Amino acid sequence: MQNDSQILKPQAAPLMLGLAGFGTVGSGLIRILEENREAIIRRVGRDIRIKTILVRDPGKTRACAMPEGARFCGSREELLNDPEIEVVVELMGGLDAAGALIRAALAAGKHVVTANKALLAEAGNELFTLAQDKGLFLGYEASVCGGVPVVQALRSALSANEFSSLTGILNGTCNYIISSMTINGTSFDCALKQAQELGFAEADPTLDIGGFDTAHKLILLVRLAWGVDYPYAELPVTGIRSISPDDIQFAREFNYTIKLLGRARRDANGRIEAGVFPAMVPTSYLLARVGSSYNAVRLEGNAVGSIFMHGKGAGDTPTGSAVAADIMEIARGDRPNNLGYNLRGLPPADIVPTEEAISSFYIRLRVKDRIGVMRDVATVLAEHRISIQQALQKGTDDIVSLIFMTHACKTKDVIGALAKLAAMDFMGAEPVYYRVLPPPCGD
Amino acid sequence: MQNDSQILKPQAAPLMLGLAGFGTVGSGLIRILEENREAIIRRVGRDIRIKTILVRDPGKTRACAMPEGARFCGSREELLNDPEIEVVVELMGGLDAAGALIRAALAAGKHVVTANKALLAEAGNELFTLAQDKGLFLGYEASVCGGVPVVQALRSALSANEFSSLTGILNGTCNYIISSMTINGTSFDCALKQAQELGFAEADPTLDIGGFDTAHKLILLVRLAWGVDYPYAELPVTGIRSISPDDIQFAREFNYTIKLLGRARRDANGRIEAGVFPAMVPTSYLLARVGSSYNAVRLEGNAVGSIFMHGKGAGDTPTGSAVAADIMEIARGDRPNNLGYNLRGLPPADIVPTEEAISSFYIRLRVKDRIGVMRDVATVLAEHRISIQQALQKGTDDIVSLIFMTHACKTKDVIGALAKLAAMDFMGAEPVYYRVLPPPCGD
Repeated sequence: MQNDSQILKPQAAPLMLGLAGFGTVGSGLIRILEENREAIIRRVGRDIRIKTILVRDPGKTRACAMPEGARFCGSREELLNDPEIEVVVELMGGLDAAGALIRAALAAGKHVVTANKALLAEAGNELFTLAQDKGLFLGYEASVCGGVPVVQALRSALSANEFSSLTGILNGTCNYIISSMTINGTSFDCALKQAQELGFAEADPTLDIGGFDTAHKLILLVRLAWGVDYPYAELPVTGIRSISPDDIQFAREFNYTIKLLGRARRDANGRIEAGVFPAMVPTSYLLARVGSSYNAVRLEGNAVGSIFMHGKGAGDTPTGSAVAADIMEIARGDRPNNLGYNLRGLPPADIVPTEEAISSFYIRLRVKDRIGVMRDVATVLAEHRISIQQALQKGTDDIVSLIFMTHACKTKDVIGALAKLAAMDFMGAEPVYYRVLPPPCGD
Repeated sequence: MQNDSQILKPQAAPLMLGLAGFGTVGSGLIRILEENREAIIRRVGRDIRIKTILVRDPGKTRACAMPEGARFCGSREELLNDPEIEVVVELMGGLDAAGALIRAALAAGKHVVTANKALLAEAGNELFTLAQDKGLFLGYEASVCGGVPVVQALRSALSANEFSSLTGILNGTCNYIISSMTINGTSFDCALKQAQELGFAEADPTLDIGGFDTAHKLILLVRLAWGVDYPYAELPVTGIRSISPDDIQFAREFNYTIKLLGRARRDANGRIEAGVFPAMVPTSYLLARVGSSYNAVRLEGNAVGSIFMHGKGAGDTPTGSAVAADIMEIARGDRPNNLGYNLRGLPPADIVPTEEAISSFYIRLRVKDRIGVMRDVATVLAEHRISIQQALQKGTDDIVSLIFMTHACKTKDVIGALAKLAAMDFMGAEPVYYRVLPPPCGD
């Protein structure tokens, strides 16, 4: 019996795809299906072919050649009315056209694979219910952390856990900018410009640096980890624009690294506290070691303990790797439950208001260097029940930086104290505060 | 439609399990199924119950209470003849009895979930073929890296990749011992004793510290990544006994950390070079940061780039988490392909003989401190085509340490050179050599 290897099932007809969008990820997918064709057939038992590609402008120059046997089309209907096409791969991005395509594809009985985190964050509950009612697969492994297999892990291999928290570096552009500021000591604007020149950031970087892309992905992770629908519009989101080289330097002095995190926790009452914000991460955390444009997720489950996954979160073939994996599930005949729950539609999340969230904080004030300022600041903090763990004054100009690391306190107390301080006449700039992650407990 | 959540399918009859073995992992599984019962039902749509537990000694004290409604049995037949039991969970360990149980369970038409890496490494090709012929699921997520979802990732979410290498810290006991030697500067014997006192190492630690447990897991990873059967008996295995505090100190001076690795690469001709050995890992690698008894795997795929996964590789509920996930797949009605290939039995691996493997090496010699030794050593190395990258002499006793970091060379040349050196009259101890991993390329 040993090593008596045989093909299990004779090769079936190719699985035919209709692809919508021929940009970075579309090109990556095409390359993977070409270059790894033999390996893919060896795994799933049939070929996977792109038949039709929906694009607005067939004349545009693309990053790779048209796949053999494929043709362009200009209308959704051409994809959807083709009975040979079993799977619609949506890689157009955006909300309206992509949403309309996915709804129509599901209505036409076609499986859908997408990398569209924005759409799934905003309309996921509706789209997953549509897919479920039709018994169709709506694959979205590529929509969180590109090639890092976190969607499948949450849906399946880690699904025996009750999760207490999940923390992710979910946006490569932001991590590239912050890492570059950390290593080179450059300003935010400088690092952003460099990231744009190298292709790590868009010309309009708002979606990334505003934290909104991270927020989309966090909504999907919350849905997978806890089986609840957290409305995207209610998620508190802070981007990275306010981070100064000073903050990074101060963080280092306290043994922390600044990262933009998407983070969610569930409390003992099942309430979800979630948000996107720059945070001080202890340097001993693996999360603090995530450099360049890499992504990572740390999950904390009551059975498994902490799980950390790290890899490329964007780019042509890393994201294409996840798209192709979802397509291969369909080619194999597997029909995984899209969300991993025995539910049609998810119930709304019971949300902890941000102001109630408890954390340690880093507070940075720019103040005029004169007598009594420290006393006044300390008085305001004390009035707001904020206990100081460490303090640091730096600078020799008229304006100096006052840095505080607090003990755990309520976010609303910090917001209240900083609002009061902002109005005082010794303040030289808007106060800044970031959360501080607790030191790791043996992991 | 938003938030209109309904139960998808009415609750089916519970999935009934027969459990073989009530040790650490068995207790962990029982606790997970009890404590997370509600969450599990919410995910899979039915309860999961342990009906019968096969043990040798029902009177023995266990780490947790008998699950409600379960009973002990003393013979395999009682499990296998019970038509209500759909899944046999094999957590006895060992080869013969466990193998006989799994064969009989598959023959009786029952799905099998196991954490038995030794058995699957030695008899996997036979057992997977048996399961396939019967259309049964043989789940083994728990057999590699405990709760870290690497089996599923290789079988599915990363399966569009051609892998070039995989590198793992796969044994928590060894990593605990090496980490403890690294942090505390203690000797191997001391660190082993401490690990035994803390329950991280068995009374007879041979399976772990000899590298054999790592080897079992590596065989399973090679099977998943490349769809080939690498005979366990042919895998070169070096354990951690020869590591001295000196080696760890020297490694640090060269910016490396010593780790016991299971590592496999595939060359351009599809040949597999695999082995278990202590290696110098550049400190900038995430693998170098894996502390205590944690496990980690780094995969390199042609589409996804590098993926790194980290978590608890052993212990009651971390391993139980993976066992429970496999059981949940069965409860959902999913029947993933056990190996992820459209093959009945895997073909044999085309193996690169260890001696042909090319690597940089760390070489440590203990030599008598006298004139001409360095010249003689350097001559022997040159005769064997070994080019020295860095050299270091340390020590003030009669016997000093000579350390070399080489450029890339053939393993057989190192073995040849050290055999010649070992016979020389100035040698104070057996020469030691470890591989050196190349520095990371941007990851």
